[in-house]
Amino acid sequence: MGPEEKKVIVVLSGGMDSTTLLYEMLNTYSQVEALSFNYGQRHKKELEYASKTCEKLGIPHKIVDATCINEFVQGSALTSGIDVPEGHYEEDNMKATVVPNRNMILASMAIGYAVSKDFDAVALGVHAGDHAIYPDCRPLFVDALRVIARIANYKEIEILAPYLDLNKAGILVHGKEFDVDYALTWTCYKGKEKACGVCGSCQERLEAFKDIGSEDPLEYETRELLPKKE
Amino acid sequence: MGPEEKKVIVVLSGGMDSTTLLYEMLNTYSQVEALSFNYGQRHKKELEYASKTCEKLGIPHKIVDATCINEFVQGSALTSGIDVPEGHYEEDNMKATVVPNRNMILASMAIGYAVSKDFDAVALGVHAGDHAIYPDCRPLFVDALRVIARIANYKEIEILAPYLDLNKAGILVHGKEFDVDYALTWTCYKGKEKACGVCGSCQERLEAFKDIGSEDPLEYETRELLPKKE
Repeated sequence: MGPEEKKVIVVLSGGMDSTTLLYEMLNTYSQVEALSFNYGQRHKKELEYASKTCEKLGIPHKIVDATCINEFVQGSALTSGIDVPEGHYEEDNMKATVVPNRNMILASMAIGYAVSKDFDAVALGVHAGDHAIYPDCRPLFVDALRVIARIANYKEIEILAPYLDLNKAGILVHGKEFDVDYALTWTCYKGKEKACGVCGSCQERLEAFKDIGSEDPLEYETRELLPKKE
Repeated sequence: MGPEEKKVIVVLSGGMDSTTLLYEMLNTYSQVEALSFNYGQRHKKELEYASKTCEKLGIPHKIVDATCINEFVQGSALTSGIDVPEGHYEEDNMKATVVPNRNMILASMAIGYAVSKDFDAVALGVHAGDHAIYPDCRPLFVDALRVIARIANYKEIEILAPYLDLNKAGILVHGKEFDVDYALTWTCYKGKEKACGVCGSCQERLEAFKDIGSEDPLEYETRELLPKKE
């Protein structure tokens, strides 16, 4: 059976979730392109990794300069001088990384891009691991996004979010199936030369690889798992 | 009775609808600020008028450079070299002015701004005159926006759209009540020195003033109403 006839824009951060999604969409649908956003994230390095993956897979990749977001949303450690929290990825410390309304802004841009190109769907790598921390990664948000994406334009845009109920380990299981090259994905929120290994984001990734009994091919400054809070 | 305790961001284009809305919100709520977007619209002149109104009213006004939208949405006469349609404002010719997903993108930015500033609501000047042409001005769109604005962030943002069921003449009736200075509003899609009077947008405005038996204080190249199509 060949791929389903559907033209899909994948919102690609360059992290492991959206990169896995890109491989999976390429295996599932007939036409797939990638869209990334530079919103002034401290870990801009993820965009280089997004480009490397698209080059390897030979698919069109657009990076939008959305740094204007920082003109009007404030207060996130991801886009400002506030320190990125370290240690196990949990609600209390990771709340500092919330960018106000980020996913709604980026999703609405992706929908506009899909409409402009006469594509059918936008695919997002949102997953269960982020539900507790980011309100705009929750199933309720994705449901509301599905509704508005159907009616905001002459063309209905479908929202694909196949990892909504998976955690990162579950996503890695999908990634194995599609032979994803995780050396070309970037997760660290700090964006230095090597992944730091200690920020909440690195820790969550290292835990996921451990959970599926696999070795993360990315280089880290340290790979030690820090204790979870009681 | 004093104004209701609510902090409101008014999305101000500089046209007559959102300017009327700004006056009305100032009369209704305790704290009001204005937010405008430069999305590369050909009629950027409306932004100067937005600034003049905010200066006159003494309220904070932020203009966001959202020209990045043009990196990824295409095909509108408002933001490209395509000719702006002339004559009576109707579905067939005005469809050329639709910017893909524009209102969802701008509304999501306004919601992010409101969350960042710890404001309670975003007010939009969407009205019934645009329902037939712009999918993202319809009540169904505003309903969907209300839902997503409540759940996309830790703070619920309310969407105020008091003109949703009014046409432009109805809005002018509100404007009279609040003594709006319409000489400081810009509606023409062409953005030359004087309003052209012949584009669909000018024609709709001139018709609205005629409908309420009032004179539009703005200068026009011509004020003649063109015949409506049968």
